Amino acid sequence: MNNVINLKNRPLGKPGYSDFDFIIEPMPQAGRGKILLKTLYVSIDPYLRGRMNDSKSYASPFELNKPMVSGIVAEVTQSEHPGFNKGDFVSGMLQWKEYQLSDGEKLLKIDPEAAPLTTYLGVLGMTGLTAYFGITVVGKPRPGETLLVSGAAGAVGSIAGQIGKIMGCRVVGITGHGNKARLLKTKFGFDDAINYRDSPDITAAVASTCPNGVDVYFDNVGGAISDAVVPNLNKFARIPVCGSISLYNLTGDHQCLSMQSVITGKSITMQGFLVSDYASEFPKATKQLAAWIKEGKLTYSETIYEGFRNIPQALIDLFEGKNEGKMIVKI
Amino acid sequence: MNNVINLKNRPLGKPGYSDFDFIIEPMPQAGRGKILLKTLYVSIDPYLRGRMNDSKSYASPFELNKPMVSGIVAEVTQSEHPGFNKGDFVSGMLQWKEYQLSDGEKLLKIDPEAAPLTTYLGVLGMTGLTAYFGITVVGKPRPGETLLVSGAAGAVGSIAGQIGKIMGCRVVGITGHGNKARLLKTKFGFDDAINYRDSPDITAAVASTCPNGVDVYFDNVGGAISDAVVPNLNKFARIPVCGSISLYNLTGDHQCLSMQSVITGKSITMQGFLVSDYASEFPKATKQLAAWIKEGKLTYSETIYEGFRNIPQALIDLFEGKNEGKMIVKI
Repeated sequence: MNNVINLKNRPLGKPGYSDFDFIIEPMPQAGRGKILLKTLYVSIDPYLRGRMNDSKSYASPFELNKPMVSGIVAEVTQSEHPGFNKGDFVSGMLQWKEYQLSDGEKLLKIDPEAAPLTTYLGVLGMTGLTAYFGITVVGKPRPGETLLVSGAAGAVGSIAGQIGKIMGCRVVGITGHGNKARLLKTKFGFDDAINYRDSPDITAAVASTCPNGVDVYFDNVGGAISDAVVPNLNKFARIPVCGSISLYNLTGDHQCLSMQSVITGKSITMQGFLVSDYASEFPKATKQLAAWIKEGKLTYSETIYEGFRNIPQALIDLFEGKNEGKMIVKI
Repeated sequence: MNNVINLKNRPLGKPGYSDFDFIIEPMPQAGRGKILLKTLYVSIDPYLRGRMNDSKSYASPFELNKPMVSGIVAEVTQSEHPGFNKGDFVSGMLQWKEYQLSDGEKLLKIDPEAAPLTTYLGVLGMTGLTAYFGITVVGKPRPGETLLVSGAAGAVGSIAGQIGKIMGCRVVGITGHGNKARLLKTKFGFDDAINYRDSPDITAAVASTCPNGVDVYFDNVGGAISDAVVPNLNKFARIPVCGSISLYNLTGDHQCLSMQSVITGKSITMQGFLVSDYASEFPKATKQLAAWIKEGKLTYSETIYEGFRNIPQALIDLFEGKNEGKMIVKI
């Protein structure tokens, strides 16, 4: 029998265990033109929260009583498809099922010899590529400039900061845990780090860690932290807006700073982006990221939960900031 | 004797007559290296409100009990300066005085034969240039795209929309008066116009006047109108943020939409800018604007108040939207 996780309720606020349904269905068999995939690793990402709402975010909403979908690395266990062999490894947007059929469309074959399988979901996958394009194409920091990253110890932030270092910036990270703030400096090579839970005045903390102001603010969080960064932005600052994790679980109205009224005076550019905007450049970017890892210039963290039944818990814990780097569930 | 207008109080909310002081001082005389200027036209602009506050906006605050400063066209009535002759006309940032001395620095000599003197404050001056760079460099609309302009009947908006038409866009304007909405279509060649005071649902009004969505939103106003535009923005939309007149007179907190959470999904770019960022390109741009006027492709409106004592009233009325196009006081 095959295990499946459906979306049961659209969460109000933070997602909880009761928003998911564990279903058992018959084991599928690969017919003509199909492959059977065995799920190995499931990617757990903040954007999933938006798709659990009824409103259209950047992807269409998940349907109620249908399986959740996220980035998955799987192994081909049966193939009736000319393009795939049993034993192939693939990554793609797949359902939260232990086993599932695919016609192979939009799957990427991946090489377990070239890099660990989990990295195709993280540093060499969506989150690493998001950091790469957000910094190199959107933020465009110049050597000597100051790059500030929020959500800095996460899967995207930790890579974004390191790419900033590679590009010659002074890099400061904001995170919500003292141990993560230390890791940013010791493991990821950030010049300085702020634990916002430990900083009664975040604006002042940014000012003291970024004495020359902030030229690029890589924004993963939005909300109060981003509002507190604003007074420290330099003339012509750029804000790649990658995500707003602080807002995803909010319900109802909330106060926020009018960015319109602050960005004019300093000629600031705030640019939202999705990694999919740059799909044609993925091969080149992945090659660059892999080369930096090989050269020892780029490192990454993964937080790996184990067991199919723990997928919802991983998502719940992601919003508590319990991950360091990429959150993945090993099946 | 010489008439002067000082800033007396920093206004709370809308500026009022009592925030200004009328002073009389001795008539200045041009000494060596100086010129004496007679004020002819005073430019009245929304950004002046920000400088009346104590906080730094994009320009430093005006000092209390010192003259207000704005764009002014003046005539040289005495010259002890080798670079200027009696009878020359100049424009520059000058004090609200009937007569004043200058060392000639940062003054631009202007030619009353080439264009009416008032246009050097408007369509060929700061507001026309703001529209030019905001559209051509920041918004970058492509032929066939939809450009939406707020504050559309103002000095910047009316020019921005017409430049959009020249660049091949469908252009829609938002304004707060029915007669201005009509003018946008009849005089300025906009394809459609919205009177927001007449539209209970601005989001729906934008949707019906912009059936293909909005590709470039030229934002002069911020606040509730801009929030209402957001659902109509297309993927990869650009928002040149020129000003936020709806917010300038607000005191205390106000609710606003978190732009961070909406711009990611549609890969929207929101870019603040100041006309001074493009100072090196002013001559080229002014030439282009003048050529469009000559070719009949660009028209402009001016609202001209008369009399030195009416300068404060012109500023007060600007925030009531009583101007059509550029607000100027003729002395």
